[in-house]
Amino acid sequence: MKINIRKAKKEDCVRLMELITELAVYEKSPYEVTVTFDHFVESGFGENPVWWAYVAEADDEKGLKLIAGFALYYIRYSTWKGQRLYLEDIIVTEKMRGNGIGKMLFESLIKVCKEENLNGIAWQVLDWNEPALNFYKKFKEVKLDPSWINGSLD
Amino acid sequence: MKINIRKAKKEDCVRLMELITELAVYEKSPYEVTVTFDHFVESGFGENPVWWAYVAEADDEKGLKLIAGFALYYIRYSTWKGQRLYLEDIIVTEKMRGNGIGKMLFESLIKVCKEENLNGIAWQVLDWNEPALNFYKKFKEVKLDPSWINGSLD
Repeated sequence: MKINIRKAKKEDCVRLMELITELAVYEKSPYEVTVTFDHFVESGFGENPVWWAYVAEADDEKGLKLIAGFALYYIRYSTWKGQRLYLEDIIVTEKMRGNGIGKMLFESLIKVCKEENLNGIAWQVLDWNEPALNFYKKFKEVKLDPSWINGSLD
Repeated sequence: MKINIRKAKKEDCVRLMELITELAVYEKSPYEVTVTFDHFVESGFGENPVWWAYVAEADDEKGLKLIAGFALYYIRYSTWKGQRLYLEDIIVTEKMRGNGIGKMLFESLIKVCKEENLNGIAWQVLDWNEPALNFYKKFKEVKLDPSWINGSLD
């Protein structure tokens, strides 16, 4: 199977929303996805984009291209570290796991940091998500810190 | 004592960095502040600002104005919720606590959300920071979720 990592395009958004929903179901929060499709597209490909993404495109047996996963990020500002890449979502669709796609996506973000002079990557992972935690532990420079609580006000 | 909440100006940045350092010391991480002053100013008041802030200005006994605290935020993009205000730092300098300044700052952010059509506020708080946790619990709509682990790669 051939995997190609490339920047996301507007036409990919339907598939991205499918994968976002797949991840939310996995994270036991399907009803938390309340963003509308139009808002999602506008936020990524409108006049003032606030998110960017890379997709992993796989050729299937019939030669069809399928987006098997993606990594979506925005730029955050840390008063401690300056500008960092915030990895909002990284997902590989269930049946395509185990092919190194997650690693390829994560490495594409490291490249973005170097090119855009960002000083690192930050993200969050659920404390019971063992496969994800094991994935991150493979990168020896990664730090995992459980001492923060998420606050929110809708 | 009279407190005035207003948008931060470029000239406030020296005082903001002082308070950022005060907070980092309180959070037991003084050496984590590695952002340079120039980068901080440029990121807030350069051509493409990535953060914004409100300050609480207090008149002291001698009629001098002092910035007693601030709230600094940026806009994050959540694939679940759309655009939200991310509260990076909120701090009231130690000797000025107990005057309701934190509440005034937090309420100024709620106003920003309404004005800019953001769907909520998100932030993080250390799990041992009782005063901060008690502060947030006063807002009955606030949710606190300890189930996420922070990942980072410098």
